[in-house]
Amino acid sequence: MKKIEGGVCAPAGFKANGVHCGIRKNKTKRDLSLIVSDTRCAAACVYTQNLVKGAPIAVTKEHVKDGYAQAIICNSGNANTCNANGVEIAEGMCGLVEKFAGISAQDVVVASTGVIGQPLSLEPIEGGMQELVGGLSDMGSLYAAQGIMTTDTVDKQIAYSFTAGGKECRIGAIGKGVGMICPNMATMLIFITTDAAISPAMLQKALSADVKDSFNMVSVDGDTSTNDMVCILANGMAGNEEIAEPGKDFTAFRKALAKVTTNLCRRIAKDGEGATKLLECKVTGAKTKAAAKTVAKSVIKSSLFKAAMFGADANWGRVLCAIGYAGANVDISKIDVDFKSRAGAIAVCRGGSGVPFSEEEAKEVLSRDEIEVLISLNDGNGKATAWGCDLTYDYVKINGDYRT
Amino acid sequence: MKKIEGGVCAPAGFKANGVHCGIRKNKTKRDLSLIVSDTRCAAACVYTQNLVKGAPIAVTKEHVKDGYAQAIICNSGNANTCNANGVEIAEGMCGLVEKFAGISAQDVVVASTGVIGQPLSLEPIEGGMQELVGGLSDMGSLYAAQGIMTTDTVDKQIAYSFTAGGKECRIGAIGKGVGMICPNMATMLIFITTDAAISPAMLQKALSADVKDSFNMVSVDGDTSTNDMVCILANGMAGNEEIAEPGKDFTAFRKALAKVTTNLCRRIAKDGEGATKLLECKVTGAKTKAAAKTVAKSVIKSSLFKAAMFGADANWGRVLCAIGYAGANVDISKIDVDFKSRAGAIAVCRGGSGVPFSEEEAKEVLSRDEIEVLISLNDGNGKATAWGCDLTYDYVKINGDYRT
Repeated sequence: MKKIEGGVCAPAGFKANGVHCGIRKNKTKRDLSLIVSDTRCAAACVYTQNLVKGAPIAVTKEHVKDGYAQAIICNSGNANTCNANGVEIAEGMCGLVEKFAGISAQDVVVASTGVIGQPLSLEPIEGGMQELVGGLSDMGSLYAAQGIMTTDTVDKQIAYSFTAGGKECRIGAIGKGVGMICPNMATMLIFITTDAAISPAMLQKALSADVKDSFNMVSVDGDTSTNDMVCILANGMAGNEEIAEPGKDFTAFRKALAKVTTNLCRRIAKDGEGATKLLECKVTGAKTKAAAKTVAKSVIKSSLFKAAMFGADANWGRVLCAIGYAGANVDISKIDVDFKSRAGAIAVCRGGSGVPFSEEEAKEVLSRDEIEVLISLNDGNGKATAWGCDLTYDYVKINGDYRT
Repeated sequence: MKKIEGGVCAPAGFKANGVHCGIRKNKTKRDLSLIVSDTRCAAACVYTQNLVKGAPIAVTKEHVKDGYAQAIICNSGNANTCNANGVEIAEGMCGLVEKFAGISAQDVVVASTGVIGQPLSLEPIEGGMQELVGGLSDMGSLYAAQGIMTTDTVDKQIAYSFTAGGKECRIGAIGKGVGMICPNMATMLIFITTDAAISPAMLQKALSADVKDSFNMVSVDGDTSTNDMVCILANGMAGNEEIAEPGKDFTAFRKALAKVTTNLCRRIAKDGEGATKLLECKVTGAKTKAAAKTVAKSVIKSSLFKAAMFGADANWGRVLCAIGYAGANVDISKIDVDFKSRAGAIAVCRGGSGVPFSEEEAKEVLSRDEIEVLISLNDGNGKATAWGCDLTYDYVKINGDYRT
């Protein structure tokens, strides 16, 4: 497996673009993105479990229920959620792709991200379609990644090449999401493309399994968004024999997919609203994998722990506290906790009680921008990793006045 | 029922005091409190459900399991939690009450609050006992309330008089807690006294029922503390016939108890770490009371909603979002949302979709220090109230460096 350039355009046969069409007031911000494949693709999606769902989710579900799609359109600046005419607008966006790009509306995945509950008009989108479609290119992944950003401070693209059925395949993705993030079955907006040939059923199987250990283990603020979606399109242009059942090729595909998703998890957490630090909580020795996940997510979601990490304060009692209320079956008297970063590692808790450590050394370890919290439950073989970020003044600033 | 002065000393036969003994470095902060009754009391407690429990909780459970107690000792500045010798120290504190105040150690309720995982020494406590016991007075509730404060900015006392069995009874309380607050079966530290005569069984029944609608509906930051405890002592000195079964007197007692606890809920939420606003989320029309509670707590715990309230931003989409991921069975298309304060009320959502409103007017409503979020689910008769506070820069500041 090899990291390569090109994001969603790294796989053969995919083009992308992103433009400013006027949904966002700031003219320097792209707000409309399009990804298209030269041929029809196997498609798989996972969606938010929030009962309040963006209208685009309903439309996308309908469009991919046959297992195929060919394009993804997404706007930022408006979530098209809790609007009386939301479904009509989302269908209208797919219709515009048909009109301008000649791809059947029924084969279009549609997504929106931004403020909830403000009417979205088709007018700026229609006005931007000519530029959007005209500029489609196999180097357009960056613009597409920028067009789906909201409070993200950096664009998020990644691509890998891997081998399946003796052929070189490629998988790439763009993603956005830095707030209202605590996925449950799916998260944020993630669009993945691959030129591997794989059946819709196996594609869905790979994606549904993957998100359990990737996006579902990320939390920026504990809020599960209304518009979360992960979508993957596979156009088969790599020429490998179609992956239609479990086996060596499916395993290779799953590994490549996990590389892409884990990379995006870390970057989404690190770019969490207002964040100065990526927090990676690694739990080992749990009775079960489920218990390990529960503990890792509880710690990564604790506001008190997140604020302590912002202050580089080795207040490990808050880690124990969050383990204690997680709801997992844990023997507190067996817990060990360490903090680790590129500056070193420091033991703070052994057997559920504190151990002496140098505050100075701890400060040094916790002052880096990527912190690992290592929790050994010493009670089994279950393990899990969760990703999050620190809680900062800027999180409050960004969210105290998001709409203006 | 009448609001009266005196906190925990309002009921007949209770004395209290609080001193600085040296656990906290700041000499102007009291850090050791004592409440005693002239006679042995019926006692009832509820405790944190966190698996990590402060050592004082284990000792208190043992001491009140016969249904009786006579004194409460509590220190601030150190939680005596996750320490290898925690139980020994907590028992030592009860022993000091026996030695200096002549009350059997077995009748002492002990509590600690502050940093987790730092060894607590009996030395400063023993050094402060003479002053603490010598200063016990029926006007000492304020000092006792101050002695249990950590990051609280105001002391919290309350008392009411009520009638049971034809006699005037009194009930009073002190409380602390502004961070690591998201109770589950019990919360924070709340010490309640009453001179009503009531059996231990009925006292426990009243308390256990009460917390479900009071302290369990408060969240400052979603973190369930390791040391939460609500304790009530009833010494019977009002001379009413002992309340030993349900009936008119028990109902009167429960009403008075609810007055005290609801008052403390609002004040604890309003004094939440860094808070500038009390948020009161009132849910009506739910299919069940349980659903109403789930929805109210989900909204009051949402970091995004809390930050929006700090910014006086009527971003009601975040309220819908938090309802949607709450986990309750709700028909989104029936939801109405209004914001209300002393400045007026404003409708923002009807039938799950936005309605036009004046942003200026909304800003005015949300700029007050007590905000009501009214959620009508229009789908049944279940209702519930939850209390919380906004998320501010100061929450981050306080918790970024709590230990120094």
